[in-house]
Amino acid sequence: VGTELLLGQIVNTNAAEISRGLAAMGIDVYFHSVVGDNPQRMRSVIEAAMSRSDVVIVTGGLGPTPDDITRDALADVLGVKLVRHPRLVGMIQDVFKRMGRDMPEENRRQADIPDGARVIDPVGTAPGFWIEREGKLLFALPGVPWEMKAMLTETVLPELSRRSGQGVTLSREILVVGLGESRTYELIKAIVDEQTNPTIAFRADAGQVRVRMTAKAAGETEALELIAPIDQAIRARLGESAPQGHHSTAGEALVVLLQERGFTVAAAESLTGGLIGAELTRAPGSSDYFLGSLVCYSTDAKAKTAGVAEEILREKGPVSAEVAGALAEGAARSFDADLGVSATGVAGPEPQDGAPVGTIFIGATLHGHTETRHVRGYGDRSHVQRMAVTAALDLGRRLVARAQ
Amino acid sequence: VGTELLLGQIVNTNAAEISRGLAAMGIDVYFHSVVGDNPQRMRSVIEAAMSRSDVVIVTGGLGPTPDDITRDALADVLGVKLVRHPRLVGMIQDVFKRMGRDMPEENRRQADIPDGARVIDPVGTAPGFWIEREGKLLFALPGVPWEMKAMLTETVLPELSRRSGQGVTLSREILVVGLGESRTYELIKAIVDEQTNPTIAFRADAGQVRVRMTAKAAGETEALELIAPIDQAIRARLGESAPQGHHSTAGEALVVLLQERGFTVAAAESLTGGLIGAELTRAPGSSDYFLGSLVCYSTDAKAKTAGVAEEILREKGPVSAEVAGALAEGAARSFDADLGVSATGVAGPEPQDGAPVGTIFIGATLHGHTETRHVRGYGDRSHVQRMAVTAALDLGRRLVARAQ
Repeated sequence: VGTELLLGQIVNTNAAEISRGLAAMGIDVYFHSVVGDNPQRMRSVIEAAMSRSDVVIVTGGLGPTPDDITRDALADVLGVKLVRHPRLVGMIQDVFKRMGRDMPEENRRQADIPDGARVIDPVGTAPGFWIEREGKLLFALPGVPWEMKAMLTETVLPELSRRSGQGVTLSREILVVGLGESRTYELIKAIVDEQTNPTIAFRADAGQVRVRMTAKAAGETEALELIAPIDQAIRARLGESAPQGHHSTAGEALVVLLQERGFTVAAAESLTGGLIGAELTRAPGSSDYFLGSLVCYSTDAKAKTAGVAEEILREKGPVSAEVAGALAEGAARSFDADLGVSATGVAGPEPQDGAPVGTIFIGATLHGHTETRHVRGYGDRSHVQRMAVTAALDLGRRLVARAQ
Repeated sequence: VGTELLLGQIVNTNAAEISRGLAAMGIDVYFHSVVGDNPQRMRSVIEAAMSRSDVVIVTGGLGPTPDDITRDALADVLGVKLVRHPRLVGMIQDVFKRMGRDMPEENRRQADIPDGARVIDPVGTAPGFWIEREGKLLFALPGVPWEMKAMLTETVLPELSRRSGQGVTLSREILVVGLGESRTYELIKAIVDEQTNPTIAFRADAGQVRVRMTAKAAGETEALELIAPIDQAIRARLGESAPQGHHSTAGEALVVLLQERGFTVAAAESLTGGLIGAELTRAPGSSDYFLGSLVCYSTDAKAKTAGVAEEILREKGPVSAEVAGALAEGAARSFDADLGVSATGVAGPEPQDGAPVGTIFIGATLHGHTETRHVRGYGDRSHVQRMAVTAALDLGRRLVARAQ
């Protein structure tokens, strides 16, 4: 729920988060619906959802401002009144007290819950609630992603798990880096065309393809047993382009290997602006392997900060295989890391230093052995940047994987 | 369209992108629907959409693999056959040729278009199409974001603009950094409660609040005239917390000021792992003001790479105001930048260096004048990181804004 979703001002990450949680429990998600802060349309969408599904999870519109009308709309659909819970008013006041502020009067509305619904205590300031009606379950959660996620994990999923007791739907993904979607499909077509359980689907994103195998079975063990032989057969045909394990990004695949070997990593990056470092610090515990990154956006910085030789920059240009190699070596040297990775190139929209938009050179160096590659990026600025991140981390992963 | 959306494996950025384009033209978006790669449910969702809306835009499921069934489902809803277009087969073959590969046999399916539909030439390998039926328009675009976006901009929006000739819906946002959503609302409540055109809505995200004013009027000029006095009145009450101009992030607000003054910026970052640099390189032309960033994740790197004095690190600890200040100064010095910004802290989920999760210290230095701040972060790891990025860039913005 939220007009800001329909205006495109925010992206619906909540739908994805909830869906992942439900899929892991074997609950099929058939529809996502988004509707704005409008009572009639909200009502029509919620009624349609409750008529076609056993469980409806609504997020958003539980805030303190006047455009937050989900409480009222749901009470209306359920045909009940809103009841103010003094205990919740107290909890919301406490949140403000901890931030050293008084609770604004408006926040009292957040303690209004449809009569007969069970309260989910707030983790921020917005309480959630849930109610059972004609054998169907309706949950209302706040729209703020981390508040939503806490209630999903602590209340919604456990409640559904208690009630379902049915089989599981389990997915495993094989990450493929450096082949296209069509080429990947072609290589494993014979396997894909024969399969019904697990089903096999593809998705391509910024230089990587994920091959998703989804099995339905009575339990997790049975589902994994269905997946295992298909997984093996697919990997046999994809070789080094498919990192061992089940990862959703090239960064994850690299991080697992670094942790296994006890290696450290550092980066030196140009067109990616810090995204290689950001990717390597995404997971908790990243300080065990990630030391730092030199973001050298200007040509000067490549020389001064990462120690790329002036004559290489002059003769080959900042967008070149030689500079990618020197950047990777500079990163490893500066931070005293086992592995150095790098990316230089042109994210666009304008050509630069004589190189066309989408030109990417990546480098990786491990214990003195350096490799570089040229990758042809495409798409918009952000897509080219993400392709460079993927390619750089994947080259690092290949070097570490080979250094058995 | 896409089971990967319903499994939560990708986020629906296409819905947001399309919605932004339509809103800018004054076309109201009332619903988003997501459905999987299932013929019956896809049919039911498309039929519902066509019954309640004048324009339906479908994305996804036009790829070459067997789970791509949108072409077939739409032909079925429309009651027509699919027709293979030899010209499109040729265009797809050319795409592969440019990548130095042969076209796999599977890609021929992508040239199948419902009979009577108009073709939208492919920008990747997937052609789109559109058709008019009983006064309603149905567009089918590929799911790959940059391919979708190109067709949206070049075909869908111009076609809709040609046909609509109606008024515009125009939004302007006031960014507010450092106040909460409730506090912001409280300060401007008297204005909000009186307004119907523009309407005013709030959204809070990672340490910032955006106040969105949305006006409907005959033309852009008239809409802006409705917004202007409200915009002024709101800013008068929010003071320095609302940067001049209409920005959606603290980074954008800073970048505009840097461009105005001809200043350069560099960063030194710890818990943000490169996200400050990434934020500053998001826009085209960022090499005019962004020089680089020192991502110093380890304590060693803070001393060695950013030149933070060992005794400060030892006495105050790496998570401290003093280190934030020294990092900002180290960044400005290393890259010879006008402005240096920094962030150090604990993203979580574990406490670190004696500081609890969510502790953030930020710093900024401009031409020798340094300021630091303590910010209390909350939420998950990624949320704490984003709060730190926002706070650091906002402190930099305040320094530049004051240096008139």
